[in-house]
Amino acid sequence: MSIADRLLELDLILPTPPKPVAAYVPCVQSGQLIFVSGQLPFAGKELLAKGVVPSRIPLDQAQCAAQQCVLNGLAVVNDHLQGDLGKISRVVRIGVFVQSDSTFHDQALVANGASELLEKIFGTAGKHARAAVGVNALPLDAAVEIEFLFEIQQASA
Amino acid sequence: MSIADRLLELDLILPTPPKPVAAYVPCVQSGQLIFVSGQLPFAGKELLAKGVVPSRIPLDQAQCAAQQCVLNGLAVVNDHLQGDLGKISRVVRIGVFVQSDSTFHDQALVANGASELLEKIFGTAGKHARAAVGVNALPLDAAVEIEFLFEIQQASA
Amino acid sequence: MSIADRLLELDLILPTPPKPVAAYVPCVQSGQLIFVSGQLPFAGKELLAKGVVPSRIPLDQAQCAAQQCVLNGLAVVNDHLQGDLGKISRVVRIGVFVQSDSTFHDQALVANGASELLEKIFGTAGKHARAAVGVNALPLDAAVEIEFLFEIQQASA
Repeated sequence: MSIADRLLELDLILPTPPKPVAAYVPCVQSGQLIFVSGQLPFAGKELLAKGVVPSRIPLDQAQCAAQQCVLNGLAVVNDHLQGDLGKISRVVRIGVFVQSDSTFHDQALVANGASELLEKIFGTAGKHARAAVGVNALPLDAAVEIEFLFEIQQASA
Repeated sequence: MSIADRLLELDLILPTPPKPVAAYVPCVQSGQLIFVSGQLPFAGKELLAKGVVPSRIPLDQAQCAAQQCVLNGLAVVNDHLQGDLGKISRVVRIGVFVQSDSTFHDQALVANGASELLEKIFGTAGKHARAAVGVNALPLDAAVEIEFLFEIQQASA
Repeated sequence: MSIADRLLELDLILPTPPKPVAAYVPCVQSGQLIFVSGQLPFAGKELLAKGVVPSRIPLDQAQCAAQQCVLNGLAVVNDHLQGDLGKISRVVRIGVFVQSDSTFHDQALVANGASELLEKIFGTAGKHARAAVGVNALPLDAAVEIEFLFEIQQASA
């Protein structure tokens, strides 16, 4: 099944790729690696979740925000690959930053929102390495920021 | 001297590779690069060091925790390489996150626990690029989290 | 125009590459990728900006500090490339850590100090992917820390 079909089956629609909030680009490819800039949980022009987890944003909403970061990251890569997400051979790594109360230690559960969605979409190729940490502040007061590293198939000779 | 012999000489025993605490995999290889997920200082099922540095975990214990993260990261790669750590041609980068009091600014000293151990084990090939920062919260209240990037030798043609 | 000429035109002088503050190396090359260690805003032996943004370091000074991190990162790569920054084919990614008050959410503006300078120097090749986050503590109380990933041209056969 193609990734496009898989997204349909999961009832997922890729958003318009968010514009960087500043002077950088959404992603850069080097060889077979595509580095995607840190994505915030934008849904349209609004952030799905603003504030620290969990005192302002409960865990389940933070997980939804992490999923939205994934959709935005995929939208960026989809654009870069001119609509062919099937070129992705592996989700290599994600870096997850959760705006956290200092007493919150379930960043892994927040990040699972992203990790499980990637596996649902890409299957085995969606299994990735990950670093998930808490931070005291994120751009625009986002609850979550996630950056992505994808591998694409080697160009045939 | 092989890496296995070097570990013996240093009296270091690689632990069982820790299972990811959530929905991701311990490491992903892309080309010659192996990205290892953020490692916590597990010793068996217990974390060696929980809480912020230094008010709950003093510097020397945080350094030991950083060393334990290295052993866990090596155990992951050793497993991936089917026991042949000699395939590693370079430790490329480590990312060190120290759960820190806001007044603590010796994250570099904590990270040295990891960096010096990598150099002891791998010699020149263990010299790596590094980013070390403080954060206000880490998964499971770990005092330290470290992710790793290794390079392996090019497969011979 | 060469990068060296471009730096002259911009009145920028690369500093002596800062020595790592601990047991690691300034950068590591793997294939065409050069990973540069997290750079602090050293100007000579002093940090340009110490303390949290913005209560101790206002936004504009934090942006200057981010620019200084870029100069230091370029000095490191320049040294590695034996003075030929023209070998850089792309700035791939920067990771920006801003020591932040918990109520500060303009990390993207701080990081722009770095991003805009890279684009001024390298033009299109300077457009990079980026993750920018806030943290509660940084080594030596630096206001900003930035790590870099550069791509160099493929060696001709």
